[in-house]
Amino acid sequence: MKLGRVIGTIWATRKDDRLESRRMLLVQPMSFRGRDLGRPITALDSAEAGAGDLVIFTTASEAAIPFRPGLTPTDATVVGVVDRVDHEEWTFVAGG
Amino acid sequence: MKLGRVIGTIWATRKDDRLESRRMLLVQPMSFRGRDLGRPITALDSAEAGAGDLVIFTTASEAAIPFRPGLTPTDATVVGVVDRVDHEEWTFVAGG
Amino acid sequence: MKLGRVIGTIWATRKDDRLESRRMLLVQPMSFRGRDLGRPITALDSAEAGAGDLVIFTTASEAAIPFRPGLTPTDATVVGVVDRVDHEEWTFVAGG
Amino acid sequence: MKLGRVIGTIWATRKDDRLESRRMLLVQPMSFRGRDLGRPITALDSAEAGAGDLVIFTTASEAAIPFRPGLTPTDATVVGVVDRVDHEEWTFVAGG
Amino acid sequence: MKLGRVIGTIWATRKDDRLESRRMLLVQPMSFRGRDLGRPITALDSAEAGAGDLVIFTTASEAAIPFRPGLTPTDATVVGVVDRVDHEEWTFVAGG
Repeated sequence: MKLGRVIGTIWATRKDDRLESRRMLLVQPMSFRGRDLGRPITALDSAEAGAGDLVIFTTASEAAIPFRPGLTPTDATVVGVVDRVDHEEWTFVAGG
Repeated sequence: MKLGRVIGTIWATRKDDRLESRRMLLVQPMSFRGRDLGRPITALDSAEAGAGDLVIFTTASEAAIPFRPGLTPTDATVVGVVDRVDHEEWTFVAGG
Repeated sequence: MKLGRVIGTIWATRKDDRLESRRMLLVQPMSFRGRDLGRPITALDSAEAGAGDLVIFTTASEAAIPFRPGLTPTDATVVGVVDRVDHEEWTFVAGG
Repeated sequence: MKLGRVIGTIWATRKDDRLESRRMLLVQPMSFRGRDLGRPITALDSAEAGAGDLVIFTTASEAAIPFRPGLTPTDATVVGVVDRVDHEEWTFVAGG
Repeated sequence: MKLGRVIGTIWATRKDDRLESRRMLLVQPMSFRGRDLGRPITALDSAEAGAGDLVIFTTASEAAIPFRPGLTPTDATVVGVVDRVDHEEWTFVAGG
């Protein structure tokens, strides 16, 4: 799982039926020290994350698990909103 | 999920039976700012996407989900045609 | 799914039982403009592909789908032999 | 599977229900010679690993297997704490 | 699937129950011309491979298939010991 920040929303009217009513977020992957890492990706939301939230997202086939028993064709899903990271050398508190 | 643009079609007569009657699209991955990213890939179509459409495509095993209950050996599938992207700093409207 | 060319065959007598009687091909990944991309990979065959054929291959877990209902430990499978690619700027005809 | 070292813990109150009561570890991937490789990742724990432990972690969809029959949206899980590595040229003993 | 050489063994007493009694090999990925490619990985063994063997290994979720019906949290498994590679320009015979 990786760390990221919600930076936008994607809208698509014509889409696979199994994506109906799913929110598609634009997420900027980040390092645990707060730097942007590479390009934004599109992820479904399973943690009621909103704009600006620091989040944990899951990729690959596990990304579809939060929407089971339904089958959802996603390969990236936001699964948690981060409160705090306790590193052996530092502590990061979201919104702190 | 990633952003791309449909730039062509692939034709293959001799193929795995489970790909019969599936459209194979040539998709150019793109950044959310409209630049080409890396090389085109081949993706099946699950959103009635056509040439020139800006699309969202799913990779890895979730790419086979739109074709369930059948089993389809695809690792990339177009799952939506993008209308609009609301980034925190800008808005992108397809065809706008 | 990616484009490649069949450039050889791999032989292994001692192997996982589930690979018995499966052909293992050596495939050179290629760009849609015909250039070699990176290193050859090993893929099972599900399209009766032969030496020199231009092929489409699937990676990740979908690579095992052509061999269902059996379970086959492959992460790359040739699923189609390409006849033609219609790009918006050019057309490629195999063997043409 | 890859080698890493546990360097911290991630806390998230608002998260997917299926992650409730799972420990999220911050793991620094390492080479078999003890050097850091790339950036830390977030992994669930299935081996009672603690801070500083040298561990083996699994990625992709197998990462969800330790939590079966439940379905858990993780793409990285610590599955073992390493005691020793016997390389053909050297032996590494953890904590040695 | 990729080519590699068995260069060692990993020992872990404290581990996920589903890895009990599985051999964990240290495998150096190799090119089909015999050069080392990148860093060693850890793979389970499903082909009775031993130190020094030239092997084919499978990654991603198919790596768990050799151990079915049990569920095993591995993302890399040795599935064959290579005898010979017939490339269009050369032939490689293991141990030759």
